[in-house]
Amino acid sequence: MDKCLLKQLTEAKDASRLMKNISQEDKNKALLNISSALLEHIDEIIIENQKDIACAKENNMSPAMIDRLLLDSQRIQSMVQDVRKLTQLEDPIGQVIREIERPNGLHIQQVRVPIGVFAIIYESRPNVTVDIACLCLKSSNVCVLKGGKEAIHSNRILTRLMQEATKDILPYGCIHLIDNTDRLIVNELIQANDYVDVVVPRGGKGLIDFVVKNATVPVIETGAGNCHLYIDKEADMQKAIDISVNAKIQRPSVCNAIETILVHQDIAHVYLPLMVKAFDGKVEIRGDEKVQQIIDCYPATKEDYAKEYDDYIVAIKIVDSIEEAISHIYQYSTKHSESIITEDEQAAAKFMDSLDSACVYHNASTRFSDGGEFGFGAELGISTQKLHARGPLGLIEMTSYQYKIYGNGQVRK
Amino acid sequence: MDKCLLKQLTEAKDASRLMKNISQEDKNKALLNISSALLEHIDEIIIENQKDIACAKENNMSPAMIDRLLLDSQRIQSMVQDVRKLTQLEDPIGQVIREIERPNGLHIQQVRVPIGVFAIIYESRPNVTVDIACLCLKSSNVCVLKGGKEAIHSNRILTRLMQEATKDILPYGCIHLIDNTDRLIVNELIQANDYVDVVVPRGGKGLIDFVVKNATVPVIETGAGNCHLYIDKEADMQKAIDISVNAKIQRPSVCNAIETILVHQDIAHVYLPLMVKAFDGKVEIRGDEKVQQIIDCYPATKEDYAKEYDDYIVAIKIVDSIEEAISHIYQYSTKHSESIITEDEQAAAKFMDSLDSACVYHNASTRFSDGGEFGFGAELGISTQKLHARGPLGLIEMTSYQYKIYGNGQVRK
Repeated sequence: MDKCLLKQLTEAKDASRLMKNISQEDKNKALLNISSALLEHIDEIIIENQKDIACAKENNMSPAMIDRLLLDSQRIQSMVQDVRKLTQLEDPIGQVIREIERPNGLHIQQVRVPIGVFAIIYESRPNVTVDIACLCLKSSNVCVLKGGKEAIHSNRILTRLMQEATKDILPYGCIHLIDNTDRLIVNELIQANDYVDVVVPRGGKGLIDFVVKNATVPVIETGAGNCHLYIDKEADMQKAIDISVNAKIQRPSVCNAIETILVHQDIAHVYLPLMVKAFDGKVEIRGDEKVQQIIDCYPATKEDYAKEYDDYIVAIKIVDSIEEAISHIYQYSTKHSESIITEDEQAAAKFMDSLDSACVYHNASTRFSDGGEFGFGAELGISTQKLHARGPLGLIEMTSYQYKIYGNGQVRK
Repeated sequence: MDKCLLKQLTEAKDASRLMKNISQEDKNKALLNISSALLEHIDEIIIENQKDIACAKENNMSPAMIDRLLLDSQRIQSMVQDVRKLTQLEDPIGQVIREIERPNGLHIQQVRVPIGVFAIIYESRPNVTVDIACLCLKSSNVCVLKGGKEAIHSNRILTRLMQEATKDILPYGCIHLIDNTDRLIVNELIQANDYVDVVVPRGGKGLIDFVVKNATVPVIETGAGNCHLYIDKEADMQKAIDISVNAKIQRPSVCNAIETILVHQDIAHVYLPLMVKAFDGKVEIRGDEKVQQIIDCYPATKEDYAKEYDDYIVAIKIVDSIEEAISHIYQYSTKHSESIITEDEQAAAKFMDSLDSACVYHNASTRFSDGGEFGFGAELGISTQKLHARGPLGLIEMTSYQYKIYGNGQVRK
């Protein structure tokens, strides 16, 4: 293993032993210190960020990508607000989940503990560096951050400020940034089972697939969102239209936006023209043959149904029945979020009971699949796997548990 | 992918869609049918098992291994009892874990759902075939079993009987045995992310390491148990001796038996001679230099401390302080189970709060780390990883969850 990486991971593991017993008060004090440090050094952060922006321009990065990289005074202040909000959230560590009294007198407590060392691999946005480090801190986890090389100057200053702001309160080595832009370092990181407890890739499908394929450390997959809206024959048309617009274009680039709308054939002739009107020319519509008979649109292919556009594009398919809608979703969904619009309670129950996506909705927008919207206060991402945690990953989902068993000399018979 | 495997995995995945909504009554009926079928075909099972035993003898397998393979009338009846006991356990599926009311009127339910398709890779004992299939059935999961080739005749008849006994109640394809003894099939199975939701290796360190290294499907690691007993300076000597004997030799071959005893220096001269007497010549003792000055024993090396003997051997080390005991455990433990013997509550709290093993005990034997002993009724194994579930894996730990969100037209602002 790379010597620098080994040193960092050893420090991270040592720090994780101590983080378990840091008090809520100290963690909140550390978070407030971080927020103050970011505010005090706002100019310095902007100077370093401008180096990344200059490199990005030299490399002809797209304006959208450059915007993702940018940290200005407003964005930094918004980061600071998010860090402060974390201090208001309940500390999950030490919570007793279950208590069991056994006939032999053993008293068993199931208690929340940190997972340990999180490795997070992410792409351009430098605000993620602060977000994740502070979520890990609040949940008593240690973080090893591997950001994109395009944001390296910003990530360096942000990490240094966080380390300095917390050094008198938290164990040495609880926030690490991997300052090596060689991609091979990622392979070593995701196979460092002796040091890392979980790896979370945050980014596009390419990054996630790479990590899943190559990691030996357990992975939490986040973010792949091919979400569906099903307009049932008993749909309330106003709800159907409002939710279609919200779920598709309130913020099309995010994982909880919908990509495909399935419409029951009995209602398609009413819904589709209203939908076209509501989208107001902002959305490219791709429909199957039946859709094309009702509205003017591009043809939709199987590839369209499998695709996460993250853009102003929607695929539409007319289905004969709710069963066909469910089968279609089973075939194409990434198991993130799906919604049914209907006034028929039985149809809603059938839809929600049959699907195995992380979030299933009745008469609401899939855009609510979000830690903040669920009331978790903050989130690490949206898990789309079934093991460990599903849907929004809040502080509780960033923990593990441990059994504490109290006896007075019991032996097994 | 191997065509047979692809067919089986496709059937398994299709079955998992339907298993989610099978009622508790139907699952219990299926379990009772299995228990009856096993009893009715007891002679047939023994005939098939004898084929495996004959092969094992031909291949000069050790008597201990042959004993693990053996199914006689008594063992089959014990399997049947275990299947019947499962019908008494509460069904975790559909349980509401959390309910959240949001200010915008959204009602969020976090509901237990099956994980989906379990791939279980295990070694010789054929009773595991029935155990695991029935645990999966009760938790609405589909199982794809890959047993050892030495038990193939036994596993075939057991699987066939279970499939036939449940075919009128459960979806087609919910119990699968991979009837291919080529080891390459395991690689395909543990990389079949489109079909398999979790893989559980049950067996020795070699099997577990192989699966962790090569799987792209999420893994639950079970069973590695380098467990410790720490005799504090404030230990009650009777408890120390009783628990030492129980934790070491009540059943030394299992993962929750201890391998190393750490003794505080202030009490070593009292404890060690009593321990030698209590072990009564049944246990080979390997001690560090300080131990060798007090009792007659073999020398212990670093390799001893790292080893899971699963045998009548124990390593002993004298420590200067509780801190040294904790550091030693951090260095060598597989994070399964550790116990402190002390009458000092503060020392007990320090030990239990500092360690991050799945189960930490005060004044009790580590042999209680078991689903049955925890009151879970049955278990798939003991998880030693931090993600998803730790310690005994009961029915609840074999589930995932899903969010059901009920609205009346809500859109995100």
